Amino acid sequence: MNIDPHSFKEIDPGKRILMGPGPSNVPPRVLQAMAAPCIGHLDPEFLGYMNEAQQLLRYVFQTKNPFTIPVSGTGSAGMETCLVNFIEPGDTVLVCVNGVFGMRMSDLALRLGAELIQVNAEWGRAIDPEDVRRAAAGRDLKILAVVHAETSTGACTPLNDLADIAHEAGALFLADMVTSLGGMEVDIDRQDIDVAFSGTQKCLSCPPGLSPVTFGPNAMEVLQNRKSKVPSWYLDMNMVGKYWGARRKYHHTAAVNMIYALRESLRLVAEEGLAKRWERHALNHKALVAGLEAMGLEMLVPEAERLPMLNSVWIPEGADDIATRRHLLKGYSIEIGAGLGDLAGRVWRVGLMGHTAKPRNVLLFLSALEATLRKQDVRINSGGMEAAAAVYEEAW
Amino acid sequence: MNIDPHSFKEIDPGKRILMGPGPSNVPPRVLQAMAAPCIGHLDPEFLGYMNEAQQLLRYVFQTKNPFTIPVSGTGSAGMETCLVNFIEPGDTVLVCVNGVFGMRMSDLALRLGAELIQVNAEWGRAIDPEDVRRAAAGRDLKILAVVHAETSTGACTPLNDLADIAHEAGALFLADMVTSLGGMEVDIDRQDIDVAFSGTQKCLSCPPGLSPVTFGPNAMEVLQNRKSKVPSWYLDMNMVGKYWGARRKYHHTAAVNMIYALRESLRLVAEEGLAKRWERHALNHKALVAGLEAMGLEMLVPEAERLPMLNSVWIPEGADDIATRRHLLKGYSIEIGAGLGDLAGRVWRVGLMGHTAKPRNVLLFLSALEATLRKQDVRINSGGMEAAAAVYEEAW
Repeated sequence: MNIDPHSFKEIDPGKRILMGPGPSNVPPRVLQAMAAPCIGHLDPEFLGYMNEAQQLLRYVFQTKNPFTIPVSGTGSAGMETCLVNFIEPGDTVLVCVNGVFGMRMSDLALRLGAELIQVNAEWGRAIDPEDVRRAAAGRDLKILAVVHAETSTGACTPLNDLADIAHEAGALFLADMVTSLGGMEVDIDRQDIDVAFSGTQKCLSCPPGLSPVTFGPNAMEVLQNRKSKVPSWYLDMNMVGKYWGARRKYHHTAAVNMIYALRESLRLVAEEGLAKRWERHALNHKALVAGLEAMGLEMLVPEAERLPMLNSVWIPEGADDIATRRHLLKGYSIEIGAGLGDLAGRVWRVGLMGHTAKPRNVLLFLSALEATLRKQDVRINSGGMEAAAAVYEEAW
Repeated sequence: MNIDPHSFKEIDPGKRILMGPGPSNVPPRVLQAMAAPCIGHLDPEFLGYMNEAQQLLRYVFQTKNPFTIPVSGTGSAGMETCLVNFIEPGDTVLVCVNGVFGMRMSDLALRLGAELIQVNAEWGRAIDPEDVRRAAAGRDLKILAVVHAETSTGACTPLNDLADIAHEAGALFLADMVTSLGGMEVDIDRQDIDVAFSGTQKCLSCPPGLSPVTFGPNAMEVLQNRKSKVPSWYLDMNMVGKYWGARRKYHHTAAVNMIYALRESLRLVAEEGLAKRWERHALNHKALVAGLEAMGLEMLVPEAERLPMLNSVWIPEGADDIATRRHLLKGYSIEIGAGLGDLAGRVWRVGLMGHTAKPRNVLLFLSALEATLRKQDVRINSGGMEAAAAVYEEAW
């Protein structure tokens, strides 16, 4: 069985403006760090980078948790890690569902043999803590899980009330922070979050492939007191923790170059500073929304519940979903995301994550969208870019 | 909670000669491909690279299996994928154990609720097919699993007899090819292997982070006829297959840049050609062994059962394991591997994988080892390098 090697060309993906739900644009420094020579996963030099990556992760998570590591898989592997290490068959798990990622956690909890309580909210809305309080009342919960930043809709669920409800019910409080980490306030210790996971390819602007997770002291206690072995070997944090801990006991080969990339992306976050980074995301979001609304488009999520880094906008009447996205990509090298589930074909998801969240991308996108919609004879107002620019000018 | 970003320096790991059990040295072309701009995981350009990576994987695996993909995790995630998708609670699974990775498969099978039959061989020896035949006799097996290339010892188990035994027992035949793929004969279709997994950081010389897997038609049938859901969501190949298949249905975000790197490393394999690559590994192995034996050192594995890419050598009397490895790394930038399990402190594992398998590395290593051992007053013969060079000269 042979193959012609010359039928495969050089990798040359071109440069896109990644305004979808992730990955976001990766800064050159991160790509360069990733291309440093691969060394051994037990090399003292590499162990130093691991320690530093952990220090930097604790900073972006705002936590003192010793167990703060990047899991060797994408955000969904982080989700699985945060459930598979704590759930034992028969445990009751409450999952809040207001989009794809809450559904995914429910699916996983069932696969792990949990008794599932689901609290739903309309897609595009935050979870109502009163609904959760009612569902949790009188139940012995092992975990209460919520998606902080629902990437499938752009809705943000505040965490403080839910943390209280979880702890009153004796449960671990688990938050999906895949899209929020590095782009808005995340403060594991102050927000009283026991278990959280994230991804690298959203507001950290690192390529996809790793999933930062953090476990607090109560979570570690639950993990150490399991009655049964963790059903996954790869994601068993009792074992993985011994590689990331002082013993450096080999478990699986770390994704060396991805860890270089993550460390560099976190270094960039630290150089900018978390508060400034959150402000930058908020400002670019405000400008984007001002531009879209000036054009006459409408946002899916009510203002008070919007995420800064993921903006779902209703597709205006007369616009062709697929043709618009294809034209933006081919003509302007701009990627935006499609709607998911019932929102497929009805909304676009416009990401402003990490390195992508810049005025020049917002203005360019508004201009390109206006041109694309006009070509389809969709009725929109002019003045989108002016409205966005005015937001920047006012802030500076 | 603040952090001083200036306390973290640039990534600068130096260049090592990676002669441990993996990762191996990554060629500059692969590092460069990996540093290409990240684009979306549903971008048509990226989907093209995915298709090409699959074609190239089928070539290195020597298979027509449509289901041939890189799993988004390291080799151990591939192992878990190959067990979690097929085992249902109560299934009988036979695992051959002659080192760490057979033990790992056993551990995993038990976590998944399998009834385990273990067939053991001494560490450093191949599995005896007659032992397997006896253990399988009269049993209704779901899977018969073996490690083709046991990285923990350097022993190679031939696959043909085992494939027959598996199929006579109505089982799927599963082979761990983490270390063999790309460095010695692997021919999934001719060797009648139903399920196989590998890693990127061994003889493919790509950074760690992905695990190529391939499922044959019988395996696909077992997967599709499961009674229960796959207990892992992340590794559920029913779902992952829909992203790698024609539908391109979103499951989890692909590790975009790692796939660039894998595609480039596979392109290098195709340019060299499999037969030449296997010969190159065999020749460098022969030269290394000639050199070590000329120095008076002894190999762990009997000649007929040796892998070419992983060479375990007994630590000579009077040599300090840790001091020797540290000196090789600090003085000569050469990494070799420690022994594992009962072999810890008793053998060194010298890898000659992929890009690392070159005469200049073999000669340099022999020279550095000789100097390091002499410094410790270990009795060794001279003439190691000459013996190795003679092997090359004879072959050329």
